[in-house]
Amino acid sequence: MKKNKQKIVRPRPSTPKGFKDYFHLYSKKRVLLIKEICEVYELYGFENLETSAIENLDALGKYLPDIDRPNQGVFSWKDEENNWLALRYDLTAPLARVYAQHLKELPLPYRRYSWGPVWRNEKPGPGRYRQFYQCDADTVGAHSAVSDAEMCIMLSTIIEKIGIRKDRYVINLNNRKILNGILEAIGILNNNGIDQNLSDMVLRSIDKIDRLGLLGVKDLLGKGRRDDSGDFTSGANLDKAQIDHILQFINMKQDNNIKTLKNIKDLVGDSATGNQGIKEIEQILELSEAAGVFEDRIRVSPSTVRGLGYYTGPVYEVELSEKIENEDGTINEIGSVAGGGRYDDLIKRFTGQIIPATGFSLGVDRLLFALNQMKSKAENDEKGPIIITIMEKDKLSEYQKIVIELRRAGIKSELYQGNPKDLGRQLKYADNRGSKFAIIMGSNELNKGVVQIKDLELGSRISSHIKSHEEWKDQPAQVEISREKLIDYITNYPNNF
Amino acid sequence: MKKNKQKIVRPRPSTPKGFKDYFHLYSKKRVLLIKEICEVYELYGFENLETSAIENLDALGKYLPDIDRPNQGVFSWKDEENNWLALRYDLTAPLARVYAQHLKELPLPYRRYSWGPVWRNEKPGPGRYRQFYQCDADTVGAHSAVSDAEMCIMLSTIIEKIGIRKDRYVINLNNRKILNGILEAIGILNNNGIDQNLSDMVLRSIDKIDRLGLLGVKDLLGKGRRDDSGDFTSGANLDKAQIDHILQFINMKQDNNIKTLKNIKDLVGDSATGNQGIKEIEQILELSEAAGVFEDRIRVSPSTVRGLGYYTGPVYEVELSEKIENEDGTINEIGSVAGGGRYDDLIKRFTGQIIPATGFSLGVDRLLFALNQMKSKAENDEKGPIIITIMEKDKLSEYQKIVIELRRAGIKSELYQGNPKDLGRQLKYADNRGSKFAIIMGSNELNKGVVQIKDLELGSRISSHIKSHEEWKDQPAQVEISREKLIDYITNYPNNF
Repeated sequence: MKKNKQKIVRPRPSTPKGFKDYFHLYSKKRVLLIKEICEVYELYGFENLETSAIENLDALGKYLPDIDRPNQGVFSWKDEENNWLALRYDLTAPLARVYAQHLKELPLPYRRYSWGPVWRNEKPGPGRYRQFYQCDADTVGAHSAVSDAEMCIMLSTIIEKIGIRKDRYVINLNNRKILNGILEAIGILNNNGIDQNLSDMVLRSIDKIDRLGLLGVKDLLGKGRRDDSGDFTSGANLDKAQIDHILQFINMKQDNNIKTLKNIKDLVGDSATGNQGIKEIEQILELSEAAGVFEDRIRVSPSTVRGLGYYTGPVYEVELSEKIENEDGTINEIGSVAGGGRYDDLIKRFTGQIIPATGFSLGVDRLLFALNQMKSKAENDEKGPIIITIMEKDKLSEYQKIVIELRRAGIKSELYQGNPKDLGRQLKYADNRGSKFAIIMGSNELNKGVVQIKDLELGSRISSHIKSHEEWKDQPAQVEISREKLIDYITNYPNNF
Repeated sequence: MKKNKQKIVRPRPSTPKGFKDYFHLYSKKRVLLIKEICEVYELYGFENLETSAIENLDALGKYLPDIDRPNQGVFSWKDEENNWLALRYDLTAPLARVYAQHLKELPLPYRRYSWGPVWRNEKPGPGRYRQFYQCDADTVGAHSAVSDAEMCIMLSTIIEKIGIRKDRYVINLNNRKILNGILEAIGILNNNGIDQNLSDMVLRSIDKIDRLGLLGVKDLLGKGRRDDSGDFTSGANLDKAQIDHILQFINMKQDNNIKTLKNIKDLVGDSATGNQGIKEIEQILELSEAAGVFEDRIRVSPSTVRGLGYYTGPVYEVELSEKIENEDGTINEIGSVAGGGRYDDLIKRFTGQIIPATGFSLGVDRLLFALNQMKSKAENDEKGPIIITIMEKDKLSEYQKIVIELRRAGIKSELYQGNPKDLGRQLKYADNRGSKFAIIMGSNELNKGVVQIKDLELGSRISSHIKSHEEWKDQPAQVEISREKLIDYITNYPNNF
C-alpha cells in the first residue's frame, strides 16, 4: 500500500555558487579599510555618491572584458513591464549615468567617490567571487592629463597610508592612445579610422598577459589558443608582421621611464595619436614627481592596457609585488589591486557630447586579502563580550541590571541567552566568544551582595566537564568582589582591558 | 529618397522606477548613523555578518506581507543553470540560511548584527523606494523572553543615543501567541490547529490599520475592501462575531500596561497559547523596567502585529510620535522606524529542528529622514575643498606642490581640473563646492614668491562677470601672503576652520 505521507523538501542552506558570507573580523576590517580610503578621497576634494545596485541594462552598456558569458557577464532580468534591469558590474558605468541624469545640478568638474559591492556573472574560481567591493574616485569634466596625474598621486597616497611600503608597489602607467597609434601604424583600420572590434580583441588579448604569458597573447593575436582543458578561443587573425609589432610594444618596459619612452617613440613614429599619448604620459610623470611620487613607484608599462572597453587615454594600475598565500594554499604574486583610466566617451553615450572623465577602482577585497597576508596575525585579536551567567532563573532582573551597568560604562557585555541549565555550557560559550570575563552570581552571592568574576584567559583550561558552581569557586582565576565594586574592578583591570 | 543614415538611439540616463541616487551629505550621514547603531550592537555583544545580496530564491522563503505582486515582491531571475536567484528582501531570511549553513562553526547563542541594502519589488510611492537600508540585530538560540526583552532595551538605547527624546518615541509590544489564542477561541482552525492561511490573512489585514483605519481592517476581515482607485481586495470572510472579537482585541490599548493586560486576559480566557503570550509580555516588561525602560516607553499594543509571516512570539515596533514633512510637502507622523520579533520556525525550514531566534530591523533611511527633519539645518554644513586655481598653464607643477602640501597638513583641497580659461569660472566652481578659500597665483605672485588667498565666504558676492585677476585683487576678502606661510595661515585661520 502506498503511504499517503508527504515528504518534506527542505531548501538547501547554501550561498549560490560564487557567493560568500563574511563574518565579524573580515567585514569589520573591510569597513575600516573603506573608511581609510574614503578619508583620502575627501582630503583630495571628492564627494560621496551612492547609486542603487540595480540599473537599467542599457544604461550600463557592454564594456566587460569577458564577453563570452551570457548577458556579457552581467546579472540581468526583465521587470514586469518588460524592461531589462541589471545589477551594476562596476561603479563607473553608474557614474556616467548619474552625471548625464543630474548634469544641471552637479558642479563641473564633478568629483565623486563611491564604494559598495558590484556583481559579475562570471565563472567563479579560487579567490574569485561574483560579488565583491569596489571603492572608486572619478573626476568628470577632467579635460587634461592633470586629472590623470592626480589619480596616480592619490593612488600612491592611499597605498602608502594603509601600510604598504614604498618598495612593495608600483603604479603601471600606459596610454590607450599609444596603442591606438600603433594599431594605426600597422593598418588595423576601417573606413572610420581604427577598427574598433579588432582593436577590442587586441586589447582583450594583451590584457591576459599576466595569466597566459607572451606566447598566449601571441596565439590570441593570431589564429587563436587552445587552453589546457581543450577549449579553443579564436584569435584576432592578425598577420605575423602585425603581431610582432604589437608584441614588440608590450614587451618594451625598461628599467627606467626615459628609456621606455624613447623606445616607444621610435615604434610610434609620426602617428599623431601615438605622440599625443606619449605627451600625456610625460605630463603625468612630471606632475607625479612634483608631488613626490618618483619613478621608483610610477612606471611606464606598455603591457598595461586594462580590460574594460571604455578607456580612451591614460590607463594606470597598482601592482603589489608581495607574494601571498591563497586560500587554497597556492602562492602567487598579489598583482593588481587597483586600476583605472580616462574614458572620454562614456557620458557621451547619453548626452551626445563629449564630457571627459578619468578615475579608478580599488578592489577592496583583493587589497584586504593582501593586507591580511602582509600583517601579523596579532591584530586579529578582538575580545568577546563579558558574559553574565544565569544561576537563578527567577533573578533575571538582577542579572539584567548588571549587564546594563556594564554597558553604560561602555563595556561590551551580554546576559547569557541560551538554555542556562548548567554553568559549564555557559562558560564554554563565553570561551568560544573570546570573552575576557564571565560573571557568576548564585543565591549565595545574591544574599551576600557579591559577585564572582572569572578570568577566562587566566583560567583557559575551562572544559565542559566542570558543571557545578562550587567546583569553579576553587579555580585560581576566580575572585569574589562586592557587587558595587564590579564596574570599578573591570574598568581598572590590568592588561589593558 | 530614403536616407541611409542610421539614427543613433541613446540610452535614457535614469534610475529604474523606484530607485534613487544618494549624494554626499545624505550618504555620509547614513554611514554615520549605521556606525552609531552598530556601536550599540557591539556593546551588547553582537558580531558583524555580511551576506551576499544574492540568495537562492528557495532559501529566502515567502514571507513578505505583499503577496499580490509578481514573485511575491522579490526581484528574482533564473541563472544559466536554471536555478532561481533572488535579491534579499530583508536581512533576517539570510541569517536563517547562514545559521543553518554554518551551524557547526558558529557559537550558540549566535548573536549577529548586519546592515546593508535590501530590495523589494513593490509598487514605489512617495518616500517608498525599492532599495533601502536595514540594520539588524538577532540572537539565534534565544530560547526565552529574556532575549526579546534585550531587543526592546537595545532599541531604546539606540533611539536615545541617536538623539531622539524619551517622550518622542514608544516601543509597541505585542505577542503573536495572544493573537493565536484569540484565533483559537473564535474557531479559526483546521485539522492541524490554527488555519495558517486564514491566520495570515487576518495578520495582513490588521497590519494595515495605520493606513486604512479600523473600518478598513473590518472590511478586510469581512467580505473585502474597495479602495479609492476602485480596486477590490477580497477579504478573509470571517463572520460578524469573529470580526468583532478581533476588532475588540486590536482596539484594546489602554493608558497603562496593567489595564491593557487585564483586558487582554479577559478576552483570551483559558487559551493556553494566549496565556503563554501574556506571560512572556509580562516578563519583557519586568526586564525592561530593570534596565530603566519604563512603561512611558514600552507599551502593550494589541494592534501591533508586524506584516512579515515568519513571527511566532513577541513582536515589537518603535514608533516616533514626531510629525514630519514628506518630500512632497505633506505632513504626517513618521510612525514605525524599527521592528522585529521572535521567529522560532525560520531556521527549522532548513534543519528540521526548532532553533528559536529573535531580532529586529532598523529602517535606516526612514530613521535618517526623521532625524534630518528633527534636527536643525545647521549641521548640514560641510565645507568644500580649498581650490587652487590655475593661472599659468605651464606652471602646473607649482600648483601641484601647493595642493600636496595642503593635503599633507590634512586640509581638504584640490587643483582646479576643469578648463582653466578664465578665473571667474574657477571661482564660481569653488563657490558651488562650498569652499572656504580659493588660492590664486599668477606670474606676478610666482615671481614674488607669494600667493593670493581669497576668502570665499567673506567675498560671497562672487559672480561670473569678474574675469580678471586684477579685479579680484581689489576685493577686501583677498590677502596676499608669502608662499611659505600658506599652510600656517590656513591652519590658524579664525572661525574654527
